Amino acid sequence: MNKVNVGIIGYGVVGKGTVDTLVQNKETIRLKTGIEINLMGVADLAFKGKSPLPFTQITATDGMELINNPDIHIIVELIGGYDHSKRFITAAINNGKHIVTANKALLAVHGKEIFTLAKEKGVEVEFEASVGGGIPIIKVIKEDLVANNISEINAIINGTANYILSCMTNEGQDYALVLKDAQKLGYAEANPSFDVDGIDSAHKITLLSSIAFGTWVDFNKVYTEGITRISAVDIDFAKELGCTIKLLAIAKKNGDEIEVRVHPTMIPNHYQLASVNGVFNAVQIHGDIVGNTLHYGRGAGGMPTGSAITSDIVNIARNIVNKTIDRVPALGFEQPLEERYRMKSIKDVVSSFYMRFMAADLPGVLSSIAGILAKNNISIRSALQRGLQPKDENVPLVFLTHETTARQIDSAVKEIDNMDLVSDKTVIIRVEGIE
Amino acid sequence: MNKVNVGIIGYGVVGKGTVDTLVQNKETIRLKTGIEINLMGVADLAFKGKSPLPFTQITATDGMELINNPDIHIIVELIGGYDHSKRFITAAINNGKHIVTANKALLAVHGKEIFTLAKEKGVEVEFEASVGGGIPIIKVIKEDLVANNISEINAIINGTANYILSCMTNEGQDYALVLKDAQKLGYAEANPSFDVDGIDSAHKITLLSSIAFGTWVDFNKVYTEGITRISAVDIDFAKELGCTIKLLAIAKKNGDEIEVRVHPTMIPNHYQLASVNGVFNAVQIHGDIVGNTLHYGRGAGGMPTGSAITSDIVNIARNIVNKTIDRVPALGFEQPLEERYRMKSIKDVVSSFYMRFMAADLPGVLSSIAGILAKNNISIRSALQRGLQPKDENVPLVFLTHETTARQIDSAVKEIDNMDLVSDKTVIIRVEGIE
Repeated sequence: MNKVNVGIIGYGVVGKGTVDTLVQNKETIRLKTGIEINLMGVADLAFKGKSPLPFTQITATDGMELINNPDIHIIVELIGGYDHSKRFITAAINNGKHIVTANKALLAVHGKEIFTLAKEKGVEVEFEASVGGGIPIIKVIKEDLVANNISEINAIINGTANYILSCMTNEGQDYALVLKDAQKLGYAEANPSFDVDGIDSAHKITLLSSIAFGTWVDFNKVYTEGITRISAVDIDFAKELGCTIKLLAIAKKNGDEIEVRVHPTMIPNHYQLASVNGVFNAVQIHGDIVGNTLHYGRGAGGMPTGSAITSDIVNIARNIVNKTIDRVPALGFEQPLEERYRMKSIKDVVSSFYMRFMAADLPGVLSSIAGILAKNNISIRSALQRGLQPKDENVPLVFLTHETTARQIDSAVKEIDNMDLVSDKTVIIRVEGIE
Repeated sequence: MNKVNVGIIGYGVVGKGTVDTLVQNKETIRLKTGIEINLMGVADLAFKGKSPLPFTQITATDGMELINNPDIHIIVELIGGYDHSKRFITAAINNGKHIVTANKALLAVHGKEIFTLAKEKGVEVEFEASVGGGIPIIKVIKEDLVANNISEINAIINGTANYILSCMTNEGQDYALVLKDAQKLGYAEANPSFDVDGIDSAHKITLLSSIAFGTWVDFNKVYTEGITRISAVDIDFAKELGCTIKLLAIAKKNGDEIEVRVHPTMIPNHYQLASVNGVFNAVQIHGDIVGNTLHYGRGAGGMPTGSAITSDIVNIARNIVNKTIDRVPALGFEQPLEERYRMKSIKDVVSSFYMRFMAADLPGVLSSIAGILAKNNISIRSALQRGLQPKDENVPLVFLTHETTARQIDSAVKEIDNMDLVSDKTVIIRVEGIE
């Protein structure tokens, strides 16, 4: 019987989910693989003075105890964040351990360095659980779609943001209220910034686009806009337009140009991504051979994420048993195409736009705004005006544009926001899939 | 540069799609894998006297020419059917060639024999393209979901049947008319039996359930019912009930019992599978760790299928280069669980049922039918009656039952169909997901 020893650092929600998976389904995995995945040790700062895991040989407070154990083959890093995780992963790689991690933040920001070190030291770094929780997507891109040039990814990959937008859509409530409920229910953190500001989605699309396009996408160049400015009135207008607002992570490749961006996006209701609700995630991929595929499931949670982490552990274990290394390149390409691509500025990205102005309900306002849009070469697809507002209050005025660039929109909005008859800052939401 | 030589037998739609994929994206695959996939030869009976593929070293009319070529590592069998394909595959395995095939019919019926021979001869047989066209699903079950005990699969895996049902639903037309259109458009074959009678779906769910449950499911025991008896009026009633009719392939495992079946199924509109339309396929899987995942894409066509075949070719090529064999067991389990499971009779499968009777519009008919159902311990969930039919014509009378067995339904229907006031044979459609 082949036996592979695993050490897990971090016993939070995902750590516990992974431990439970490995313990509960140890026999299933053995029957499938012929390999015993031996959970040799778990380390967590919180273990001080108690040993809650009687079934592991080692429970430690310091991850280094596992990293320095010569019998452990695979270190699973599940503490998240940048500093300690990087220190542990680097030390483990230097000790010749293979790595499994769910840490998208670390990989999106420091991945290049980590993958380079791993290659140098002849170990593998796997990260299926870093995007889409239990949804098989990293391996799908690297292996199942290997025959394809992937040109587009559209993804809902943050469960918290999607949960909030789904509630706002279903219940017509405003952002702040829904966020508070989500926090009570444990679907949003006390400090929800990573999720609602789009940063987590940006980390994830950085990884997805890097392996899909075969280049290292610079996280700092990923345009990132969150959902905090979306209000009930915009969701209402979206419905009137036959659309749904989702926080989409989008990556496109066109010739030598790539664009990678995260922002609230209005999409037609008949799009499959429009019906991905609650904490679920979905990733849609376009390959030149296969066309569109869609991959859907639970994007977070201890057990779904534990499922993905365990598939990585098994993958490495199979390589250990078969004495192969880097059978599949860590980032999907044997020869990365680093130099080939140019990152498009968000200002030059073309799409339709939803614009909501709050303006005085007076003659001439609509025509003034339309005039400014025309001057900036922005073509209007449709306009909606809500009548019957309380007297003297500003009314929402909505334009849906044909395809144009953010550069043109910005220039127009700058002028419009300076108009005396316009009160609030104009709300702008990109629209995909209507042209 | 590692080079792996491939020979393709069969140059139909899928053969051409595979050849096009390998030629068009040869450089992409090389950049991703570091391996040159060399399309060394293609064989097809139709090549007699002409050589339409100048870029391959060999074009042959007889597949044996490729099988007997000592330089070819992988034989791709794409002729379909049972006899010639089996002869070619067996000969190729005996010659030490690895096999890639899209032939679900052959594998569902003769798979045990073929996989046993392959294991004996130390070669691999891969079949990603046999189910769901371009959708990654075989590898997903075998590798990505390796941590899970899979307990349920619900799948739309026949594009022709789904296209016909989608058209019937969208256009309110009857089966025969839509079939004719589908044949004109090339979405259905001249003899559509394999597709519309559910046989193709049964082949595919045999393979999916075999690798998911770790046992060899006997194709002959898979309950198979097609869509030919579905009429516009049933689709209409389904709409009234908030449901959609789909040809589902279903596999469930419960303790030591498994059930595998293909039949038209009424599912609630909010189910994701209800919105899988046209020629698209989708496979929903339930694993004990990951929960539900859904995998969606084009289930047929030369290029999507070529994408899946190429991923198999690359997978084997990676194993050849890394000198590993059976790194992942062909059927997902190192130790098949053959003896463990019992196949449940379709008579004992529990579900809700839709029943449509055509009965005289006279007092007492509804109560008589309801009485017979009650006598058979069938509990009624709701009843629909269409009024305002032309005088003297029988009217459709619909009952939706609570969960019961087919055994009980059959017993009741036998009695009801004998009633003088009931004209046509009762239409019965299983309903899933409403209890």
